[in-house]
Amino acid sequence: MGASRETILETIQKYVDLVATGSSADVVALYADGATVEDPVGSDVLTTREQIAAFYGALDGLEQEGRLLFARVAGNEAAFSFELVTKAGDQTYTLAPIDVMTFDDDGKITSMRAFWAGEDLIAGP
Amino acid sequence: MGASRETILETIQKYVDLVATGSSADVVALYADGATVEDPVGSDVLTTREQIAAFYGALDGLEQEGRLLFARVAGNEAAFSFELVTKAGDQTYTLAPIDVMTFDDDGKITSMRAFWAGEDLIAGP
Repeated sequence: MGASRETILETIQKYVDLVATGSSADVVALYADGATVEDPVGSDVLTTREQIAAFYGALDGLEQEGRLLFARVAGNEAAFSFELVTKAGDQTYTLAPIDVMTFDDDGKITSMRAFWAGEDLIAGP
Repeated sequence: MGASRETILETIQKYVDLVATGSSADVVALYADGATVEDPVGSDVLTTREQIAAFYGALDGLEQEGRLLFARVAGNEAAFSFELVTKAGDQTYTLAPIDVMTFDDDGKITSMRAFWAGEDLIAGP
């Protein structure tokens, strides 16, 4: 039995909230053992918990807001778009990727691939 | 050399337009030889041109409108959401999946996976 649609949608919402305002340790805790992260798609795939922790650790201390825009679940996989706004002094940087995730039976993330490119990063006042 | 970002975005726009209002033969022509289709994710993967033609052939003759909502390109892959509205008498049926595609060097689609579930199909007046 795979995770339910509701469990998967809850994990996605938690992920977006925690990436924006949680600690990197809380984000990493959403991942199953052996999970992989490819962010952005085409970059080196992170395969260890240490690599994944270091990746999200780069977000710690940033002032950010996150918002889930659109999510689609199919079986034990999902795709969703979300917006992440980072404030740096008077500037804001907005990135809205589409992430694709697979989940184990407990709703833990077993893989994440993030679709975005440099052209999608928007700087604003 | 992979297809350019612009070529991939053009193929995605053509795909959405043709799925809605083109012939199935036009849609199939966007696919490379050997391409695969998994729609929805979790269903049997279509692996032959005949299977893919039959799949899109089911849309021929339907009155539909399509609109690309959101696209993200990363290398020679992309994810995008689009809305497909089908009219049947006084009813409309709206489905907005997130599709993930890979592309060859010419911008032809080499694989498509569509994320959606029955819960995402919205019936309206």
